[in-house]
Amino acid sequence: MDPRARMKGKRTPKVQNKTAQVIYESLGEEILTAPARVERRGTTPCLFGKGGTCCRVCNMGPCQVVEGVEELKGVCGASAATVVARNFGRMVASGGSAHSDHGRQVAIDFYETVHGETPFEVKDKRKLRVVAQALGVDPNQEEPELLKQIAEVALRVFNQQEGEIPFIRRAPEKRQALWRELGVVPRGVDREVVELLHRTTIGVDQDYRNILMACARTALADGWGGSMIATELQDLLFGNPGPIKAKVNIGLSVIREDMVNVAVHGHEPVLAEALAMAASDPEIVEEAKKVGAKGVNLAGICCTGNEILMRRGIPVAGSFLQQEAAIATGALEAVVVDVQCIMQNVVEIAKHFHTAVITTNPRAKMEGGIHLEFDARKALDCAKAILREAIARFPKRDKSKVNIPDHTVDVVVGFSHETILYMLGGRFRASYKPLNENIINGKILGVAAIVGCDNYRVTEEIQVELAKELIANNVLVLTTGCAATGLGRAGLLRPEAAELAGDSLREVLEAVGCPPVLHMGSCVDNSRILVAASEMVHTGGLGEDVNELPVVGCAPQWMSEKAITIGQYFVASGATVVFGPDFPTLQSQVATDFLFHEMEKIFGAAWRVARTAEEFASIMIDHIKNKRKALGIDKPKPRVLFDMAMRRALESPKVTSPFHGLGCFGPLSLKVNPEEEKAA
Amino acid sequence: MDPRARMKGKRTPKVQNKTAQVIYESLGEEILTAPARVERRGTTPCLFGKGGTCCRVCNMGPCQVVEGVEELKGVCGASAATVVARNFGRMVASGGSAHSDHGRQVAIDFYETVHGETPFEVKDKRKLRVVAQALGVDPNQEEPELLKQIAEVALRVFNQQEGEIPFIRRAPEKRQALWRELGVVPRGVDREVVELLHRTTIGVDQDYRNILMACARTALADGWGGSMIATELQDLLFGNPGPIKAKVNIGLSVIREDMVNVAVHGHEPVLAEALAMAASDPEIVEEAKKVGAKGVNLAGICCTGNEILMRRGIPVAGSFLQQEAAIATGALEAVVVDVQCIMQNVVEIAKHFHTAVITTNPRAKMEGGIHLEFDARKALDCAKAILREAIARFPKRDKSKVNIPDHTVDVVVGFSHETILYMLGGRFRASYKPLNENIINGKILGVAAIVGCDNYRVTEEIQVELAKELIANNVLVLTTGCAATGLGRAGLLRPEAAELAGDSLREVLEAVGCPPVLHMGSCVDNSRILVAASEMVHTGGLGEDVNELPVVGCAPQWMSEKAITIGQYFVASGATVVFGPDFPTLQSQVATDFLFHEMEKIFGAAWRVARTAEEFASIMIDHIKNKRKALGIDKPKPRVLFDMAMRRALESPKVTSPFHGLGCFGPLSLKVNPEEEKAA
Repeated sequence: MDPRARMKGKRTPKVQNKTAQVIYESLGEEILTAPARVERRGTTPCLFGKGGTCCRVCNMGPCQVVEGVEELKGVCGASAATVVARNFGRMVASGGSAHSDHGRQVAIDFYETVHGETPFEVKDKRKLRVVAQALGVDPNQEEPELLKQIAEVALRVFNQQEGEIPFIRRAPEKRQALWRELGVVPRGVDREVVELLHRTTIGVDQDYRNILMACARTALADGWGGSMIATELQDLLFGNPGPIKAKVNIGLSVIREDMVNVAVHGHEPVLAEALAMAASDPEIVEEAKKVGAKGVNLAGICCTGNEILMRRGIPVAGSFLQQEAAIATGALEAVVVDVQCIMQNVVEIAKHFHTAVITTNPRAKMEGGIHLEFDARKALDCAKAILREAIARFPKRDKSKVNIPDHTVDVVVGFSHETILYMLGGRFRASYKPLNENIINGKILGVAAIVGCDNYRVTEEIQVELAKELIANNVLVLTTGCAATGLGRAGLLRPEAAELAGDSLREVLEAVGCPPVLHMGSCVDNSRILVAASEMVHTGGLGEDVNELPVVGCAPQWMSEKAITIGQYFVASGATVVFGPDFPTLQSQVATDFLFHEMEKIFGAAWRVARTAEEFASIMIDHIKNKRKALGIDKPKPRVLFDMAMRRALESPKVTSPFHGLGCFGPLSLKVNPEEEKAA
Repeated sequence: MDPRARMKGKRTPKVQNKTAQVIYESLGEEILTAPARVERRGTTPCLFGKGGTCCRVCNMGPCQVVEGVEELKGVCGASAATVVARNFGRMVASGGSAHSDHGRQVAIDFYETVHGETPFEVKDKRKLRVVAQALGVDPNQEEPELLKQIAEVALRVFNQQEGEIPFIRRAPEKRQALWRELGVVPRGVDREVVELLHRTTIGVDQDYRNILMACARTALADGWGGSMIATELQDLLFGNPGPIKAKVNIGLSVIREDMVNVAVHGHEPVLAEALAMAASDPEIVEEAKKVGAKGVNLAGICCTGNEILMRRGIPVAGSFLQQEAAIATGALEAVVVDVQCIMQNVVEIAKHFHTAVITTNPRAKMEGGIHLEFDARKALDCAKAILREAIARFPKRDKSKVNIPDHTVDVVVGFSHETILYMLGGRFRASYKPLNENIINGKILGVAAIVGCDNYRVTEEIQVELAKELIANNVLVLTTGCAATGLGRAGLLRPEAAELAGDSLREVLEAVGCPPVLHMGSCVDNSRILVAASEMVHTGGLGEDVNELPVVGCAPQWMSEKAITIGQYFVASGATVVFGPDFPTLQSQVATDFLFHEMEKIFGAAWRVARTAEEFASIMIDHIKNKRKALGIDKPKPRVLFDMAMRRALESPKVTSPFHGLGCFGPLSLKVNPEEEKAA
């Protein structure tokens, strides 16, 4: 049956993603998709829940609380601000748990790997000693011992009960001093999460300010703890991303008509790495050929997609928004998932095709899925078993149902923090100095991060419009997560997109051959932005703390609680963030004022909310301009004065970056340990 | 002004608690109390929230989900069962966090105490070696080292990442084997909480069965981990409770007209112990006298009340339900709070009097409260500072506003697990053998625990009616928490209440001089019931596992999320529990069936729900009778056969209880270590 035949007289619900829209249009109306559910639910989301004033922490409730109406406090007397702060706290704790449980698993995999218990190895040792030093591990020791110590210290970040998590020492000194003064330095990831959860239970913390400050601490435990551990150890295990050409979106070069197609969806790269190893195993290739396929083709979805895109150049079929559509191409033999952002509806969509939904993680099973548990210690065997399940489905693929709109787009990705050092600083003076110089001289107005999820309730391509507006205004854009995939689909991750940039930014981009939007990785990789911002401060000339930088972040379509945790660690680290299209505290002006204004006084950065691309752009560009003004770089100065003031700062940074002296981080001239180099 | 004058023409909202009702009646209508809020909110609690089908874990929601309506799944496709299981999981994680953060603080206080850093000491060493052994610490070592090792192992229960928490070895062997087979043995408290939280975030665990089994694991980490650590270390630090006469409820012997009255409200006994020490300090007594008082009088509220009632005989002014009323007597100079179940409205009520609300814990501040932070290392100084704040308020007490209805009731409390051994077993053969014998011979039909909160939405005294019904049916009742205070107010904690018991139970009670309802402590002390039930199994004659015992638990007015965690650890430990008047999963029949029926197959115990005292009693008595039937002790047997079968089991218990050989646990003939005794 021609898929187009099913379309007759059908009204397809609107979705911002054009590829998904095209595929949805070919589905029968009897298949309920996420956008269809948005339309057909018949209700808008409850405003108490949406705005944070529905209190469900005890069985006297739920209490729907209205700020300013005495009778409509909670039965216990909880104010709207308390309720909103509690709900916000639970989001931060939950999002932090998600990232950190991911980070913990990476640390366990790393531990097992350096003890020879997995088929993996520490693939990329270029920043081994940098990471060691940041963790407080003596970098000048024999490698096997060094690796084991890194593993142990990394694991301790999660269960440490007192003291400070080690990575906070990467932040500018002024920021560290502020955190210590405020008492928000995380002791250990788990402890902060459990304590915050305790504080949000009935009758514990009932001062919204105290709860929201605890949110900051728990969020910092994610950003500088769980997420940063995930990023750094993944880089060591699977390779530090460097610029690589690849493809994103659904199309014939991503989903192959002649191969067994396996989509890998979720967050932890270890599963995808193992599948990639197994997919090229001659035994598996042979088995695929036996059923008439040319081999096994992998495509990523969501953050798993970003991880293998950045490191292996494996194409990404889609962001969160495209997970149903990828299956609905009819050409996937299996969707293999681990944890986070996997919609339960993928099982329902898969039922209409020959596609297997394979769960692999004991933490995340699905009704109707096939559970084939993945164990890093038997990674290859597990991966092969999963691929065999997919191969067995290939003969069942119904060609009449296959519908692969060829929307693939080229991208250049892999802009890890270290890559940016290299790209901008050049091979022989890897540093952020050129970036800072270009910001000071005004060629680059500032830096903006567009991160976070996409969301079926948003039907405009806000992220794309915003990115275009920012680069046209000479703002360099960094991106991660599903936002990155979306910007990739729009062609903004190609160096050619520099033509959309304002004149002065374009000049810089063309000099180094760099796209105007830099893909920095998955959602745990927002920790790279923390390191990059700190490095900009360490490099000098742009103030002494992150909050002085002409830098701003945003998550225009946030969906997951993880986004809130990320936003809060950015704010507590000194970077203002703009979220939208709504914000989960808006039903309490009191609590919202604390997040939007008081935090500005406390952390030098705060939350903002915006609804349209124009609103986002205007808030973000104004913010950058205000920071430039405060730094005194808002207008051209007499050349001599400028040089004297700014050069001096640049030449004598207050802190010596651990990255300085590393020389080039590029692939050809690796110089990890300057001591060794001197000795040689 | 005569307080009664304010009453004219006033309609006082109904509250189950008569003392609170009397006091509320004397308050002006402008003072909004919790029962007034229940009445005046003008809405009933949202049914989606109440029944567990409101999903707020992502910003595509909130999604109100209707089971069986495809369009009303979550936008992501989450089924009602998934959503209900997630919400249940968050309750378990939050309740577990609360108990465990309390337990962690006790472990820290214990650690500091055994290292000489606090003014406290390990007051009661009678069960030191029993606790050591249960924690896997060698009991045969010098005491200072033993204490330090106990402290370290106790702290590890919270942050341990792999393996098994030690106290699970106290459970019957059959139960331990079942847990291992099911994979639900907790690795460490924090890890289970963080993992469960992760599993409930968007797109992770989407098989309600898998989530609910994770709830069991996390709950076990509370019952046999955090809560049990709290109980055992509190007993060591502040004394193992033994039978003690005292008073409960608001009255002139609890709140004193001639003294500075300080109510201690919350959960951690360390604060109350320090206040008790400071209140009798001559310096403080002198200061009190200077303002015209005879001294400082302490009264407990909520679980703090239970802790100091059990150990020091300090009277309890009220349960959760009476916290507003205690202040509204007009005779409290201060309410000193730490954590949990403190209603934000106490600050509002206090504003109408001279009462200070003093917060003491960094985790729990209140808008409008005075924060005087308590640090165990400077316990006495902190306590004195707090009492001075109260003393300074005494001259401001407005006698015209004082209204202390004299409702005080005598109680006998302090039935720790070890006390029960002693009470029933007698001084020289402390054991549960007499209890088991009396159950086997039918004098005691079974044992029921009435635990948990009270709740402003419940206007009948369900707990009291239920307790009377149970004891009339020869069921021995154990109680903890606010339920215990309520049963105390009703006079059921007096030995004289034995007259309400059925003939055969009364006979047993009168022989040992014991009340029909045994007060076992605060809500963390539900862990005592786990130990007691295990001990009944170890004693023999009543099967090989907890689920075979004619034992049942209930929480007829559960309010806090902690109650759900407690219920789940009972169920997973083999004890069926009945909750009411509602249950947070009822909007998903699928998930509820799992909790109510599938768990019966898995754990041999399950959840039940009831609404009225009659419903509770009928379910509980039926349950006990069914268990008796399964054990073959449901009807009188030919005397000889009965003796042979049952005696044999009783004489040769399969497991030697660690408590056996301890001899009497009574205050006069302490024999802690039989080895030492032999050597002497």
